[in-house]
Amino acid sequence: MQPKLTLYHYWRSSCSWRVRWALKIKGLDYESKYINLLKKEQQLPEFQKINPAQYIPALIIDEGGKQKVAGESLAILEWLEERWPTPALMPKNPLDRLWVRQLSLTIASGTQPLQNPAVLEWFVPDAGQRPASLHHWISRGLSVYESYLKEAPWKGPYSLGENLSLADLCLIPQVYSAYRFGVSLESLPRVAAIYAHCMKLSDCFAASPEQQADAPGGGPIGT
Amino acid sequence: MQPKLTLYHYWRSSCSWRVRWALKIKGLDYESKYINLLKKEQQLPEFQKINPAQYIPALIIDEGGKQKVAGESLAILEWLEERWPTPALMPKNPLDRLWVRQLSLTIASGTQPLQNPAVLEWFVPDAGQRPASLHHWISRGLSVYESYLKEAPWKGPYSLGENLSLADLCLIPQVYSAYRFGVSLESLPRVAAIYAHCMKLSDCFAASPEQQADAPGGGPIGT
Repeated sequence: MQPKLTLYHYWRSSCSWRVRWALKIKGLDYESKYINLLKKEQQLPEFQKINPAQYIPALIIDEGGKQKVAGESLAILEWLEERWPTPALMPKNPLDRLWVRQLSLTIASGTQPLQNPAVLEWFVPDAGQRPASLHHWISRGLSVYESYLKEAPWKGPYSLGENLSLADLCLIPQVYSAYRFGVSLESLPRVAAIYAHCMKLSDCFAASPEQQADAPGGGPIGT
Repeated sequence: MQPKLTLYHYWRSSCSWRVRWALKIKGLDYESKYINLLKKEQQLPEFQKINPAQYIPALIIDEGGKQKVAGESLAILEWLEERWPTPALMPKNPLDRLWVRQLSLTIASGTQPLQNPAVLEWFVPDAGQRPASLHHWISRGLSVYESYLKEAPWKGPYSLGENLSLADLCLIPQVYSAYRFGVSLESLPRVAAIYAHCMKLSDCFAASPEQQADAPGGGPIGT
């Protein structure tokens, strides 16, 4: 039986998108609780009790009478993959798995944290100056990702070639942010092609920001 | 047979320490190549060819005539664990594994990137202002880590209780940086206790900064 899953998330949060996408791929039901980052609801005492890091997403896993809260999106993705291995989001070969994690962390550790609102607010008090930093770090991170793709012997619609993997789940929401903030992808043809391909996948699209019920004027198309 | 491993690292790099420690635990030989971050050797064209991210560590894995370069320390740790499962650095239970990754990423994604020299140089051009940011982010990250430890039902010398895990390999080098930069650990008794315990482990100590051949005046004690 599936554990009861409650996901605290926000429509535009790239880390939330990673987890929503994985949950949909694995065919898991979850209850949504929305945390409005613009209203700084992640800093409210009641949410701090759930995730002391004051970050979303946070996933409450309720199984066998025990509750566990997970708040690091990549840790959640690895757990989902281990508990529900099909459809697979990780290859079997250790070196290929290393490569998926290398790509995933290039986004999850090397790029996203540097555009996190709390981080930018600390380092760049003048909001008008923030776009320059956003551009710098997103552009740098995606350029590194593109370099890694060029090194790899495989070619295909996904980061790892023919198969969707955790790397794509990290990449696509980051590319969405790049487009949102006007970061040029002209010199990143592989990254741009993977994005274009993935956005046509129904699970990716359903997990994307504008399809969430808390998106302004929003909610899924057709509802 | 063990693949030939070449590690590009720097004595004081916390991410390098994570990998050195894991290599020692797994009993693997590696050749050291030193990259002096103070001289910005990570930005040299010849190193960019090895790791386009211009970060260390970078591990060259040479096996069966093929070479692979890995540059994300947590990806390297997971690979080492999958290839050489003993002594184990990950528990078997999926929820415990989730927890190890949650803790590891609290450091590897939520804390270390915000104290990375390249990041601080970008955000805080005035070097005299950098300590305030270092203190803020290290203190915040370790406080979150301590909160997670308090939530957990287990108690013991390590983050996961009785067994050393990848989480400790991420935590200890970060705590070393906290001491180095004068961040108070008074309100973080569990974090401080895990550090004190781990620094007595021979593999951890042998992988620590001052024991590296590129440390000033340095090299291992007794050589």
